[in-house]
Amino acid sequence: MVTSMTRDDHERRMERAAAAAAHFGLAGLIVTPGPDLVWLCGYQPPAATERLTALVIAPGRRPRLLVPVLEQPDAERAAGADAMDVAGWTDGANPYEALAKWLEPEGRYGVSDATWSLHLLGLQRSLPDSAYRALTEVLPMLRAVKDAHEVARLAAAGAAADATYEKILGVRFAGRPESEVAEDLARLLIEHGHSQVDFTVVGSGPNGANPHHEAGERIIEDGDMVVLDFGGLKDGYGSDTTRTVHVGEPGAEERKVHDIVREAQQAAFEAVRPGVACQEIDRVARRVIKAAGYGEYFIHRTGHGIGVTTHEPPYLVEGEHLPLVAGMCFSIEPGIYLPGRFGVRIEDIVTCTESGGRRLNDTDRALAVVR
Amino acid sequence: MVTSMTRDDHERRMERAAAAAAHFGLAGLIVTPGPDLVWLCGYQPPAATERLTALVIAPGRRPRLLVPVLEQPDAERAAGADAMDVAGWTDGANPYEALAKWLEPEGRYGVSDATWSLHLLGLQRSLPDSAYRALTEVLPMLRAVKDAHEVARLAAAGAAADATYEKILGVRFAGRPESEVAEDLARLLIEHGHSQVDFTVVGSGPNGANPHHEAGERIIEDGDMVVLDFGGLKDGYGSDTTRTVHVGEPGAEERKVHDIVREAQQAAFEAVRPGVACQEIDRVARRVIKAAGYGEYFIHRTGHGIGVTTHEPPYLVEGEHLPLVAGMCFSIEPGIYLPGRFGVRIEDIVTCTESGGRRLNDTDRALAVVR
Repeated sequence: MVTSMTRDDHERRMERAAAAAAHFGLAGLIVTPGPDLVWLCGYQPPAATERLTALVIAPGRRPRLLVPVLEQPDAERAAGADAMDVAGWTDGANPYEALAKWLEPEGRYGVSDATWSLHLLGLQRSLPDSAYRALTEVLPMLRAVKDAHEVARLAAAGAAADATYEKILGVRFAGRPESEVAEDLARLLIEHGHSQVDFTVVGSGPNGANPHHEAGERIIEDGDMVVLDFGGLKDGYGSDTTRTVHVGEPGAEERKVHDIVREAQQAAFEAVRPGVACQEIDRVARRVIKAAGYGEYFIHRTGHGIGVTTHEPPYLVEGEHLPLVAGMCFSIEPGIYLPGRFGVRIEDIVTCTESGGRRLNDTDRALAVVR
Repeated sequence: MVTSMTRDDHERRMERAAAAAAHFGLAGLIVTPGPDLVWLCGYQPPAATERLTALVIAPGRRPRLLVPVLEQPDAERAAGADAMDVAGWTDGANPYEALAKWLEPEGRYGVSDATWSLHLLGLQRSLPDSAYRALTEVLPMLRAVKDAHEVARLAAAGAAADATYEKILGVRFAGRPESEVAEDLARLLIEHGHSQVDFTVVGSGPNGANPHHEAGERIIEDGDMVVLDFGGLKDGYGSDTTRTVHVGEPGAEERKVHDIVREAQQAAFEAVRPGVACQEIDRVARRVIKAAGYGEYFIHRTGHGIGVTTHEPPYLVEGEHLPLVAGMCFSIEPGIYLPGRFGVRIEDIVTCTESGGRRLNDTDRALAVVR
């Protein structure tokens, strides 16, 4: 997830984060290891652990990073290290007391979503009058709006995923276990420049009706629908695309269900433009599927954002009133899941531009027939 | 991290957890994806995400697991599924309201350490009069005391790590980058039955003086000290051992520093017995190093527990008053780090028995000379 951005990129992002915090009436942000930390300051310890690492960003102050002292040398080599102060704490000391000294006792802070409860509870105890909100709740758009450089990276990751899809159409499906096709997908993603594969879903026949099935030992058969949903990171930015293929000639109902999902995906794509609420994209897709009589079989939200992770705000889901903003990048992935029978999902990453949506995946959305 | 335990193992563990919660005056435990969840009920979703998955264990009640509805089929196949109720929540609904219905409005709950702050804050908002403590703070011994079956698994993982060390002594060090020796270690761990490699530290020369250095492109030279610290999971349980070797004949100071660390490690090992406070083991090791004049160069705690993860309570650190209990398994790993020069660390996993410590790593602790 190392994005090889420059010191200036990180300084700009930390300044933007501080300004956003001020705008929303926050005393600052507290960010622990994970994608937000990488994105802000370029530092990624080997893992998030019980030892506190936390970046504090506060309006009008130089950012400060607190790290376990034995990780300080690594932290001081981070791309954004020159744009912040780095301090170490030693095993046996109370890191929450150390962090609390940097905070306002009655301040309201945004804290990164994945911050361990161990750390949040430690902080709440050290500063009982402070208050916390999850970062994506108060600043959902902090990483959601991508600059041109980031969109270019996402487009390159999308192109690599598209090339993977086009290659996978040529492999044999019938008679092989799902797990083998999943390995093909992983290998192809790496061959096309991915540094990391995050998921390779191969959902054949009834397994396709479980949207979170990954890939198992089921042998793919002639006559199966197969959901292929795969992605990972390329140059620090994510890919995520889904196509549903059919082994041999599909039947009438399979074609019909696929057509409905394709129509829903297209309608949702066409609804993308700045100012439209996220939930509206979900509603547009759902309306098409409901009108066709399959509403109860579309059992997940329509999409999620993508950036330095493959899963982040904005979420295209009922109840999300956040308006789309030019530069946002997200999946549009409606599906229909018929329990015990088959599933269909079609997914592209789409970026919102001033004039509407632009697809970062653009392989053929027709139902492909494979061997 | 799948431990292939039985339904009865999980039922027993969940009952033990409920009893421990009651004993400590808690209304129950809330456990989200991670090692605690695997250990308790055998369920491990592909990842911890922004979608809430939570197991609620409360004294006198059947355990209940709340999962995103699209992951419900997988959850219902977990080893411990028959010993609990599984319920799903749908995208767009508020999972914290759903979870809150299972909780006492003014209850005090233990929450797993790595639970995302997003989820804890959601719960705190739904139940403003409830209170939370980090699981390892209130029930540090929940997973810390291993049964005989678990100790046997840790011993097997330790034996595989020992075999790896004995093999690595035969490879060439001089003239090769650290990263290549790290790959050798990873390959050997897998060959000896590990399913997952968690770390392969190769810290040569000055890199050895940074205890968290992993392995880089530095070319190992004749005359280097090299810290080798490696481990991972075998059959769901962890290994973690360190030996420091020397390329060619060591000098007098190198021998001296190595002897001090070895003496500290031995003294700490001999101090292990039920009832001794964790911090006492740290103090014993530190005393030896301090007496030899190197106190300021021992810059980390003496050890950490190990089980279904390679890093968990108990922590052998100043301030940890928790007494050792028979069945606890932990590392003893003192070190001396001379900045810009070299480092030495010696580490074994040790289990506390009624009659004292038993090493689960037992390769030669003398300074080995490699090529």
